[in-house]
Amino acid sequence: MEFCQILNHKSNNNMNLDSVYSELTLATKAKLALVVLDGLGDIATPEQGNMTPLEAARTPNLDALVRSGCAQGRMIPVAPGITPGSGPGHFALFGYDPIEFQVGRGVIEALGLGIELEPTDVAARANFCTIDSKGIVLDRRAGRIDTAVCEELCAMLAAKIKKIDDVEVIIKAAKQHRFVVVFRGKGIAGPLTDADPHREKLPVPPAEPVNKKCAKARKLAKVVAKLYEQVLPLLADKAPANGFLLRGISNQPTIPAFSERYRLKAASIATYPMYKGLARLVGMTQLEGPQTITEQFERYLKEYENYDFFFIHYKYTDGFGEDGNFEAKKKAIEEFDAALPVLLRRKPDVLAITGDHSTPCAMKGHSWHPQPVLIHSPYSGSDKLERFTETGANLGSLGLFEAKYLIRYMQANAKMLDKFGA
Amino acid sequence: MEFCQILNHKSNNNMNLDSVYSELTLATKAKLALVVLDGLGDIATPEQGNMTPLEAARTPNLDALVRSGCAQGRMIPVAPGITPGSGPGHFALFGYDPIEFQVGRGVIEALGLGIELEPTDVAARANFCTIDSKGIVLDRRAGRIDTAVCEELCAMLAAKIKKIDDVEVIIKAAKQHRFVVVFRGKGIAGPLTDADPHREKLPVPPAEPVNKKCAKARKLAKVVAKLYEQVLPLLADKAPANGFLLRGISNQPTIPAFSERYRLKAASIATYPMYKGLARLVGMTQLEGPQTITEQFERYLKEYENYDFFFIHYKYTDGFGEDGNFEAKKKAIEEFDAALPVLLRRKPDVLAITGDHSTPCAMKGHSWHPQPVLIHSPYSGSDKLERFTETGANLGSLGLFEAKYLIRYMQANAKMLDKFGA
Repeated sequence: MEFCQILNHKSNNNMNLDSVYSELTLATKAKLALVVLDGLGDIATPEQGNMTPLEAARTPNLDALVRSGCAQGRMIPVAPGITPGSGPGHFALFGYDPIEFQVGRGVIEALGLGIELEPTDVAARANFCTIDSKGIVLDRRAGRIDTAVCEELCAMLAAKIKKIDDVEVIIKAAKQHRFVVVFRGKGIAGPLTDADPHREKLPVPPAEPVNKKCAKARKLAKVVAKLYEQVLPLLADKAPANGFLLRGISNQPTIPAFSERYRLKAASIATYPMYKGLARLVGMTQLEGPQTITEQFERYLKEYENYDFFFIHYKYTDGFGEDGNFEAKKKAIEEFDAALPVLLRRKPDVLAITGDHSTPCAMKGHSWHPQPVLIHSPYSGSDKLERFTETGANLGSLGLFEAKYLIRYMQANAKMLDKFGA
Repeated sequence: MEFCQILNHKSNNNMNLDSVYSELTLATKAKLALVVLDGLGDIATPEQGNMTPLEAARTPNLDALVRSGCAQGRMIPVAPGITPGSGPGHFALFGYDPIEFQVGRGVIEALGLGIELEPTDVAARANFCTIDSKGIVLDRRAGRIDTAVCEELCAMLAAKIKKIDDVEVIIKAAKQHRFVVVFRGKGIAGPLTDADPHREKLPVPPAEPVNKKCAKARKLAKVVAKLYEQVLPLLADKAPANGFLLRGISNQPTIPAFSERYRLKAASIATYPMYKGLARLVGMTQLEGPQTITEQFERYLKEYENYDFFFIHYKYTDGFGEDGNFEAKKKAIEEFDAALPVLLRRKPDVLAITGDHSTPCAMKGHSWHPQPVLIHSPYSGSDKLERFTETGANLGSLGLFEAKYLIRYMQANAKMLDKFGA
């Protein structure tokens, strides 16, 4: 009996722990800053002189910060061995279990384009593609048409297709061949299967309800089918962009608002659509304008009194990792380091610097390797390390932990978490 | 709707994570090798010169492997402080949560003896014992009779007792006083309590259903009682082996097949019955023949193209740990190291070397101390350690983690796990 109770209790482990954290959370006047160097983590290989870019980079300002007292560790973004996309990577950093809170690709893309989604909207990631006269996909990316062409085509489609039955259709261009379709109306719901063969030389399959018993999804599937009927004639003479694919057709998940969950009024200072969108999804205010990391830090200084929590996102470490460009990734870290003194002009009470995942140059892509993290605060203590590196972080007091707990450590360092029990 | 499903799913955290891993798993052509030095882990004590056998051993080949780039860490086989038997230790290494997938000792022993169990079979571990005229147990191991005597007695019993009611009874000798009884037939099920007082000077208790409401278990309990009625007269003049005990009377659990779970066609190159049985239980193919670790590695080379995953088991580290023989355990490690170049003649894409648990010489038995582990692959990165040791592994990038995740790290290093989310 007792054992059963324990198991029942245990079975909803996460929600239970979340509610404990919630009960312990106090509002304070502390300022917290989370600085994310996208894809920061890397691996040392013989070809790279047995160094990671972070280890090879000259980082005098980070070094000084570390020597002034930091706790370091490494973080598992999702679970051991799992390589996260940017969505799960950031959700973990924002303290939301990335398996519990899964977000459709369409939703992320739509938010990144600045579409303010309503809770019942369904969003899909779309591609222009090239099809032959029988509807067989010849090129899933329509020869990567210019963004200007994509914008023109989307504007044309958006002008001609505003509604299907009683469902509003919003079409918005992204980069190159990519765009987003949002369905807004009553009685519709995702998820639908992809209208994408995921390979070439196959026809575009119809989007179908994942749960065939869901009447709302069945209604949406009919709307999508009609969208294809209406759009394809409009694209007939637009080769190579004479077809389109839809993926990740789903609703925005219900996510507890960041501000309430952590009692932190949060601002996002991101420059790329995806990260703006992710921050918006948890309810952060996006501060538009800054383009460089220096400008982002300057904006932080300016807004210091207006928010409690700042999410500052630096993209380039990830991009160069994806390119496999060790020198450029190292240089991006050095440029970040050069800008760091701007942030430190007005030090937040708690500063965390990390990545959302690793993007090892040797892998030219995201990976599962735990990213290094540092926390600096008057109460972080010092791990007596000289620098912030992957190898050093292995020795840190934070150990290896799930990234979703970072925000809790930040709250703790801000003295925002009351004592548990007497 | 989708969100409800996700939350429901989440409530069974382990199964959910397993299903995430399963969805992400890709078939590749990678070759993975898991080399298990049984009971490898140890502790440093003043009496041993403050060294573990692994630290004291001369291991030039392991050292070179480490310097060529390895990730290291330590693994908790079951849960903090829990000392595992060989069953849970290996189940964790094979990626099955050892608390979720519990295997009866009888089942393990039966598989180890090469009995091919059917899913509904119930197996029990048996001992000959010495009883007095009142049925009181005088020696639970019947003076550790010779294996030859045990084989003779089992052959006699097997010839005389083939069926009890409609249930087939299979009796097979193991080493010394040990044997196995398998019950095969319709309408029976375990688990039953042990027909073993677990101490001397007590009578043998009847085996009873653990769940008294289970009709199949009640039927089996009657069969076991009849087995005692029939066997005891046959042993009456066979003292010291004039009685017997039954333990771990249970069914084979339903275990998802290794090959499907990980998309890896797996071979076991083990030399001891127990480990062959454990590998067989998850569906690995046992490659018979090799006796020494060199022969095991040679067999791996020969079968390289035929399988994707090789489980190679080395027994002696555990045996000498159980004996408390530091020098012999150290020497067993050195012999393993001397053989290692044979394996490395054709390096697997991913190589993991570890133990199934610790068997500290100072404890003369299994223990809870996390065993050290190393992973070597083109994507393992380097922790910049010089050797593979317990103390060094404490500094590694894998940190301290549950052993059941090792296979996931191996899959990740083999690029078998797709990206999670966008």
